[in-house]
Amino acid sequence: MAVYTDITDEELSAFLADFDLGQALAFKGIAEGVENSNFLLETEAGRFILTVYEKRAAPEDLPYFLNLMRWLADRGFPSATPIADRAGRTLKTLRGKPAALVQFLSGLSVRRPTVAHCREAGEGLAQLHLAGEGYAGRRVNDLGQPYWAPLFSKHRKGADDLKPGLAATIDKDLAELALAWPRGLPSGVIHADYFPDNVFFRPDGKFAAAIDFYFACDDAYAYDVAVTLNAWCFEPDGSFNATAAAALLTGYQRRRPLSPAEKQALPILARGAAMRFFLTRLADWKATPAGALVKPHDPMEYERKLAVHREGLTLFGAPA
Amino acid sequence: MAVYTDITDEELSAFLADFDLGQALAFKGIAEGVENSNFLLETEAGRFILTVYEKRAAPEDLPYFLNLMRWLADRGFPSATPIADRAGRTLKTLRGKPAALVQFLSGLSVRRPTVAHCREAGEGLAQLHLAGEGYAGRRVNDLGQPYWAPLFSKHRKGADDLKPGLAATIDKDLAELALAWPRGLPSGVIHADYFPDNVFFRPDGKFAAAIDFYFACDDAYAYDVAVTLNAWCFEPDGSFNATAAAALLTGYQRRRPLSPAEKQALPILARGAAMRFFLTRLADWKATPAGALVKPHDPMEYERKLAVHREGLTLFGAPA
Repeated sequence: MAVYTDITDEELSAFLADFDLGQALAFKGIAEGVENSNFLLETEAGRFILTVYEKRAAPEDLPYFLNLMRWLADRGFPSATPIADRAGRTLKTLRGKPAALVQFLSGLSVRRPTVAHCREAGEGLAQLHLAGEGYAGRRVNDLGQPYWAPLFSKHRKGADDLKPGLAATIDKDLAELALAWPRGLPSGVIHADYFPDNVFFRPDGKFAAAIDFYFACDDAYAYDVAVTLNAWCFEPDGSFNATAAAALLTGYQRRRPLSPAEKQALPILARGAAMRFFLTRLADWKATPAGALVKPHDPMEYERKLAVHREGLTLFGAPA
Repeated sequence: MAVYTDITDEELSAFLADFDLGQALAFKGIAEGVENSNFLLETEAGRFILTVYEKRAAPEDLPYFLNLMRWLADRGFPSATPIADRAGRTLKTLRGKPAALVQFLSGLSVRRPTVAHCREAGEGLAQLHLAGEGYAGRRVNDLGQPYWAPLFSKHRKGADDLKPGLAATIDKDLAELALAWPRGLPSGVIHADYFPDNVFFRPDGKFAAAIDFYFACDDAYAYDVAVTLNAWCFEPDGSFNATAAAALLTGYQRRRPLSPAEKQALPILARGAAMRFFLTRLADWKATPAGALVKPHDPMEYERKLAVHREGLTLFGAPA
């Protein structure tokens, strides 16, 4: 949660002059997303979110993300539509940084998803996968399995600082994941960061929208399901909630049934997905200055999930 | 700009259950105010700002602030109205901290006020002073003149760290201010923090609203005018913009003409007002951890304003 870039009223007026949205009526920095600066903007034409892209988002990837959001919205998926200026551009510049204006979406994220939320979130994820079919943009998953070992090599000491002996355990995990990593599963556009804070629900508990597509890429759909299981189906005490997981998978399969190969691959994909978030949190952990108001996510939460996955999950009756 | 307290969807639901505002439709932490946590809340009944009071606001002062906001709004002054729950309470508790819900106000603050903005802001301040007449609440200005010397005694070293010899200069200023400080000027409710980021304008440039009444107290109206002159009428290079100041005073006097005694007192009041903000910024400067995302205000900005006021301002023709 952060606002890294400060926008003056004059800069905002100059920005809005390129659009047919009337004048600004209200403008507030909002605490959403840790990677970019976000502002709630109300104009005579409605409500919008203005995002100024900071460090992590690579400028060359932004057209992929913005075009994807438009593609999904055009196909009826509830994601924020980017707003084009009079020249048809959605990717703009503000204070010398890339910026975009998207439609404001109503809905609330939940901190502790219920089983019912997991079912809805699963169904929403399948909708997203189906809506993404045919999207022409391509983006390699640069946080996918081939990238984990090189990333870890830079942070081995950090792992041992967190827990003596952890680096050797992770080395072994990485070797096992490399050997067992499934290939050839159905693939396409995945969200890759479908966490509870990126999913909105309506007051009646129904899926309302997904936001924050800035990790979206091409990868196996079942890997996205695995990321989602990790993010939604663990209890605060670290135990895996099999009922929530079953509901999430039921919800998903209402829209997109999983193939036998996908079902069989889920436990190893979930172990890999836990590795991916452990590694990026480990890298961010040391990089955050003491006293900073943005608290980095605890890598040990994902180390505990990794430990659960080392034992092997049972998702569809018999152990995989 | 900060959100210090994290509110879960469950805490929000429990909070809203005391009100007749329907269910939450959207909820976002906003980067407004450095002292408290603020959230934009949309419910079936409209839009609101939820404030959770953190460290600086003394809990015993909150009824004064909330009742004042209601008093002003009831008298037609555009400030956010606190919303009462079914039991008639505006001061609530959330996560064990005091909290209140107020109406959302449209309008934009300006970074670099024009002369026209200064005129409008001055008129808005006079409206505020008039609307506050008759308010029964009382609050001593605990950042007023009698408190400056004791506050400075704790931060003398910090002043010399900023600029060698500064502590002795401030001592002399404090002695001169104590001798010359005017007494018996017309007094009542003042805002005491009427800075550009606490004032909203409409798209046509007209005064729209004032926010953030959490320094409001009883003191001389002309002191509030002096705080406002310091906040609105200095150029980024440190020079005093006499045209902006004249416009601010003209706008103010459209609604509330200043007495000869108030006019004569303005230069010394402005010097004192510069001292007050220099001292609190000096105190906050050392207290902020390095790397914190909330950047403290630079005390030296107000040290430069103090230096301008030491020479004496000319506001109404002949030097005071």
